[in-house]
Amino acid sequence: MSNSDAYNRGIERRRRIIGAGGRGRRQLLASIHPDLERDILEHAWGGILDRPGLDERTREFVTLGILLALGRERETIAHFHGARNVGITREELGELLLHVSIYAGVPCAVTGAHILGDVLEQRGELELAPPTGD
Amino acid sequence: MSNSDAYNRGIERRRRIIGAGGRGRRQLLASIHPDLERDILEHAWGGILDRPGLDERTREFVTLGILLALGRERETIAHFHGARNVGITREELGELLLHVSIYAGVPCAVTGAHILGDVLEQRGELELAPPTGD
Amino acid sequence: MSNSDAYNRGIERRRRIIGAGGRGRRQLLASIHPDLERDILEHAWGGILDRPGLDERTREFVTLGILLALGRERETIAHFHGARNVGITREELGELLLHVSIYAGVPCAVTGAHILGDVLEQRGELELAPPTGD
Amino acid sequence: MSNSDAYNRGIERRRRIIGAGGRGRRQLLASIHPDLERDILEHAWGGILDRPGLDERTREFVTLGILLALGRERETIAHFHGARNVGITREELGELLLHVSIYAGVPCAVTGAHILGDVLEQRGELELAPPTGD
Amino acid sequence: MSNSDAYNRGIERRRRIIGAGGRGRRQLLASIHPDLERDILEHAWGGILDRPGLDERTREFVTLGILLALGRERETIAHFHGARNVGITREELGELLLHVSIYAGVPCAVTGAHILGDVLEQRGELELAPPTGD
Amino acid sequence: MSNSDAYNRGIERRRRIIGAGGRGRRQLLASIHPDLERDILEHAWGGILDRPGLDERTREFVTLGILLALGRERETIAHFHGARNVGITREELGELLLHVSIYAGVPCAVTGAHILGDVLEQRGELELAPPTGD
Repeated sequence: MSNSDAYNRGIERRRRIIGAGGRGRRQLLASIHPDLERDILEHAWGGILDRPGLDERTREFVTLGILLALGRERETIAHFHGARNVGITREELGELLLHVSIYAGVPCAVTGAHILGDVLEQRGELELAPPTGD
Repeated sequence: MSNSDAYNRGIERRRRIIGAGGRGRRQLLASIHPDLERDILEHAWGGILDRPGLDERTREFVTLGILLALGRERETIAHFHGARNVGITREELGELLLHVSIYAGVPCAVTGAHILGDVLEQRGELELAPPTGD
Repeated sequence: MSNSDAYNRGIERRRRIIGAGGRGRRQLLASIHPDLERDILEHAWGGILDRPGLDERTREFVTLGILLALGRERETIAHFHGARNVGITREELGELLLHVSIYAGVPCAVTGAHILGDVLEQRGELELAPPTGD
Repeated sequence: MSNSDAYNRGIERRRRIIGAGGRGRRQLLASIHPDLERDILEHAWGGILDRPGLDERTREFVTLGILLALGRERETIAHFHGARNVGITREELGELLLHVSIYAGVPCAVTGAHILGDVLEQRGELELAPPTGD
Repeated sequence: MSNSDAYNRGIERRRRIIGAGGRGRRQLLASIHPDLERDILEHAWGGILDRPGLDERTREFVTLGILLALGRERETIAHFHGARNVGITREELGELLLHVSIYAGVPCAVTGAHILGDVLEQRGELELAPPTGD
Repeated sequence: MSNSDAYNRGIERRRRIIGAGGRGRRQLLASIHPDLERDILEHAWGGILDRPGLDERTREFVTLGILLALGRERETIAHFHGARNVGITREELGELLLHVSIYAGVPCAVTGAHILGDVLEQRGELELAPPTGD
């Protein structure tokens, strides 16, 4: 059976945004239930997220706000990569965390900073600041 | 005692984004605890939200994503007004609801649509579509 | 443009489970964004929820557990109707609330009881017990 | 069948903390499922909450923090009454809202202020402050 | 002091559903506070969950829906085991994840798939599908 | 640029409550965005949390209730240390978990017991109880 157009669009979009690390995940999803993997690629990545009504930067900002607020840590990692991959800067991500601290509380921002620190380190983009306040 | 600069910036920003309806709210907040009203205006509206690092459109999109995901209905009303007041279109808000349905579930999007319907009606911006599907 | 098969299946399923009260809701959704109404009927009601892998009773039980836990009150009303419409008894709904009190806390169960009381009253299915404990 | 000791302790405690307004609620709960009403009174009010390990003031503070964070608005009303009934002052409740704004976000605190405003008004304990910031 | 009947029923039920892995947990709970371990076994496992009003399969489905929606990952692991132990099939768990994606969002379903993958692997029940979409 | 008074009060307070382990965290926060670290110390620790309106014990109780309810596990670890550091006893923390089980559900209490077990072990304050129920 050949893949639908939406599925192919979803694969392409997901690969471009979340990156190569996503392949093991897709295999796992497919092992749990082939339709789960197919539905997420067809309907989410190749359907709703592919619509032109919102640009990719705005989508990643909103997605991260929701994931941080709901404490979905595993997916937050993927979308900090996604944010960097669509051109959101490190400074903007720091600013997003400050914004999130207002609307979802300081613990969300602190947890987000730790996750973002790991993501940036993995990407070779973290430069530890000299200790302050001592 | 005169107001701080941050407080005055916060009042101005809040008035511009949430609109005139916010005054009764500020009075209530001040009645509960004067420092609660002052802190929210100084630190949130006149501090974090006043920072140049993210533009107002992006901030309202993220805010609405978080408020819908967390089910903060009262504040969602205020920020649908805020979104319209900073120039986010009705179509973009519909698109936001579709996006939210992926990341926080369909009930968030449906609840959001009902709240948005009320807000648009109050603003004279809702035109009921002819019934479909029948 | 004619409706897709999934859309038609979605309308039929939604009407059967949520009931006639759902039509005003669909019109509102369509007014907010036609694709929002279409997507929910096609993908949720006519797609995922139409799959044979779980029976309707189990789906309504799980749905209510999630809605109560997340505090989505508006949708909880619709699905208490849905539960009754697929044959879940009042006793089973009371038992569900006891179960929810363990996994999501007593306030969820109490809020759920109030919502269920309203739904049963509207359906003419509530008989107030004599006061106890006095 | 006579009531258990825990049930009687639960009724007494609930009446003292939530007040007379709770009777209609108990009747509704009993109508939904007699065991739901009995379980909440026996196990929650007459059991866990009756334990001497934490004093009533601390319990009401923690309860309100949780209810505000989770957005359980209906129960928040009852426990703002509860807090006042166990001697927590209006100033302490305002301070609690400031504290909650840090750990669960500003919208929680604002929503809490509105609910608290209604509760205090109903108790004849609200004095509207003169408008500020204008 | 001998154990209550409810406690003994609770131990038996928990052991049957969550399995042998639960013993270390019970010891930890008892070390934190003996009454915490006793209360959970007596009231939850030996009380509410032991009631005949809902069958075990339905209870595990609802429990998993709630735990996934609330992001209680640690407990989700235990109840994926529980679901398998009461006879829910792998296919039904995949279907549950699809259902959850509608009501609590796609990230819940993806996180659930990862947790379920680990649980199935630990049970020797996971067979990785060949990579798709490449 | 010298630090503000609020910043210095925040550092002192945070160090006293969360302890020495917090320094690596502050460095990470500062690396993500210097203003994030500064804002949390100035406004949260040196501002709201420094207010005399609620004592430190009550603040830690409320904070833990919120963090457990919202599932913010990383921050829960820090504040179990905080609770012990401001003199809350192990027995009171066990009692808090029982209280939380009522208002946010049993899984919150069980997850909290596991986190607390790790914290107490790290502090050399955990003594495993003999196995019960066998």
